[in-house]
Amino acid sequence: MAVGEAHFPDMPVIDGLRLGTSTAGIKTPGRRDLVVIEIPDGARVAGAFTRNAFCAAPVTVARQHLASCASRGLSARYLVINTGNANAGTGEAGLRDARATCAELARLAQVDDDNVLPFSTGVIGESLPMERLIGGLPMAFEALDATAQAWHEAAQGILTTDTRAKGASVTLQIGDESVRINGISKGSGMIRPDMATMLAFVATDASIDTSLLDALLHETLGRSFNCITVDSDTSTNDACMLMATGRGAAVTSDDPEALDIFRNGLQRVMTELAQAIIRDGEGATKFVTLQVSGAGSRREALDVAFTVAHSPLVKTALYASDANWGRILAAVGRAPVEDFDVSRVIIDLGDVRLVEQGGRAASYTEDAGSAVMGRDEITIHIDLGRGEEQATVWTSDLSHDYVTINADYRN
Amino acid sequence: MAVGEAHFPDMPVIDGLRLGTSTAGIKTPGRRDLVVIEIPDGARVAGAFTRNAFCAAPVTVARQHLASCASRGLSARYLVINTGNANAGTGEAGLRDARATCAELARLAQVDDDNVLPFSTGVIGESLPMERLIGGLPMAFEALDATAQAWHEAAQGILTTDTRAKGASVTLQIGDESVRINGISKGSGMIRPDMATMLAFVATDASIDTSLLDALLHETLGRSFNCITVDSDTSTNDACMLMATGRGAAVTSDDPEALDIFRNGLQRVMTELAQAIIRDGEGATKFVTLQVSGAGSRREALDVAFTVAHSPLVKTALYASDANWGRILAAVGRAPVEDFDVSRVIIDLGDVRLVEQGGRAASYTEDAGSAVMGRDEITIHIDLGRGEEQATVWTSDLSHDYVTINADYRN
Repeated sequence: MAVGEAHFPDMPVIDGLRLGTSTAGIKTPGRRDLVVIEIPDGARVAGAFTRNAFCAAPVTVARQHLASCASRGLSARYLVINTGNANAGTGEAGLRDARATCAELARLAQVDDDNVLPFSTGVIGESLPMERLIGGLPMAFEALDATAQAWHEAAQGILTTDTRAKGASVTLQIGDESVRINGISKGSGMIRPDMATMLAFVATDASIDTSLLDALLHETLGRSFNCITVDSDTSTNDACMLMATGRGAAVTSDDPEALDIFRNGLQRVMTELAQAIIRDGEGATKFVTLQVSGAGSRREALDVAFTVAHSPLVKTALYASDANWGRILAAVGRAPVEDFDVSRVIIDLGDVRLVEQGGRAASYTEDAGSAVMGRDEITIHIDLGRGEEQATVWTSDLSHDYVTINADYRN
Repeated sequence: MAVGEAHFPDMPVIDGLRLGTSTAGIKTPGRRDLVVIEIPDGARVAGAFTRNAFCAAPVTVARQHLASCASRGLSARYLVINTGNANAGTGEAGLRDARATCAELARLAQVDDDNVLPFSTGVIGESLPMERLIGGLPMAFEALDATAQAWHEAAQGILTTDTRAKGASVTLQIGDESVRINGISKGSGMIRPDMATMLAFVATDASIDTSLLDALLHETLGRSFNCITVDSDTSTNDACMLMATGRGAAVTSDDPEALDIFRNGLQRVMTELAQAIIRDGEGATKFVTLQVSGAGSRREALDVAFTVAHSPLVKTALYASDANWGRILAAVGRAPVEDFDVSRVIIDLGDVRLVEQGGRAASYTEDAGSAVMGRDEITIHIDLGRGEEQATVWTSDLSHDYVTINADYRN
């Protein structure tokens, strides 16, 4: 199940950046499950990774290789991504497998091992089937291509329980040059990213130095992938990579106008990719926007939004299209807010006022609430009445399909 | 659904304490839904209430009446509890209804209004049906009785989505006197108590002063009701009351031996009542004990235990009896622990070692893990390897029935 229409954009070429996908049979024979992304020499690469302490072996190795490249003044040249197996909770053997994967691709591409960054997604705690994975690398390497079809196949090749490929693209005008930003993402369950989502790969042909690229990645992450939750479970494998080939227009902090155009375009791609994960959340039948305003700090606004977004009782009421607003009120009330004066709180469901002055709004009717709850896309707006800060978080509902998908996941 | 055998104990008489139940038709005609508890003059009463900022009207009024009694050197004489309606999110009108309920019972019993404490549980955000509630009070008042049957009927009269009545009782020997502790509780969903559970009423005939009674209540709560979670949602109506009639043996801090016997007995009753809520958690098919040891602080141990206990992915794996231990590892890894060295973490499922040295234990086999996961009662032990502190938390699984119960709750 998923919410809204699926639409995979017709991605423009990012000059010099190529993608290749193969069917290595890592978990399921015949499905696309191994992706190689080639980044041209001289490009800049920024990465953000999960803060889960039990981070997966490929996350550890990708961090090490990024640092090792940077210390030599180089950038990563290849990303290798497998689905079907997360290579997480696999200890030393997992690290050896991730390094061996990089080494084999480095051999094919004739680059150094640390020019290759590994990524894995899938079931936790099982060893990578190295023979099949290594066996699939030549096919992915030979398939490297810059076309829209290559992007689409790569987006398919990183999916797990996702029901559809996720992509977003913008073309920006900076001065008299066009700049392109393409991105793909995957994720459906174990989604409460903390630094990054399950997996996202975004590329642009802009020319940007590494520190600015890194800053832009973290800034736009903070309002996209770090503002979504399906089930509150932060994955061991979250990673988000931003690559700038440098073949297009320059984006620097010396040119605020160009920087603004680029930042806004990047934010749009990141937000679309993040929202696509929620629309395709495991068992999702609703796409829910939680807007919190009037907060004393952004942290407070996020805390309230995530408390409501994680409430199983709110999520089951959303699934049932039941305007059981008391559950929203109860979730807001248990959020970690100091000296919380609930008489100032206003809660709106779409354009219907639910709560004011500590209780049900005088104007509220069950019919009006039910009409909003019956929709596929629902906005809940909570004003705390205690400051100027705000945050927006996106989430899905908790359905029977969520339980079915996760009770049967390994079968 | 519920886990394990239902057993309601044969409660002894607590001299002077009487309970009466009626069928007021508050939500469902013909079911026991209104309970009055009479506390003898001279007894001592301690209470703990929800920290949800949107606390229900009866919680506000019960707190006010307790304080008002205390300022006059008196104790509460009556508790009045309705199910079927939480009187929460009802603003000023809700406060008026809670006060009117107390006033009516005070009139029947010829006591002052502030001698009566009100409690409500049920759906949030609807007005109390005052005519039916007031109409049911005389029947409950006339039914006041000290017998085991009165205790059992009262335990039935406070239930909502619970599938069975919950009670626990111990008889202690203090010197040459016996002391009795009886308790009843209710709760099944919206269970992550914060100061107290949904509702629990515990009475003893011991003679204890108010400050010691209060201290004992909070101490035993901290290791019982505050260590359970069904769905992470802290209710608006949580309350736990401890009443000591003072007609039996004295318990004072001057007699450490008697205090120890009493404290242990009270802890046993509180823990049994708290565990009964988890065994009857909404849709529960498993009773899960999370033991965290080797923590740097009790707070850290509780944080890790609750992070695992709240993980929808761990809970659906438990429901499926699927030894998907990677989800336990991922949940531990995202717990809020500073400088977390996962290579020191040991995770055991029952007597089967799952995780050591940052990954799957060498001795682990899927068959051994599956054998434990197939049981109704499962213990997960997590040693953090960083200190001496520990905590135990109890939880249930996330099943299709949980979604069904909460998607259909108001229908």
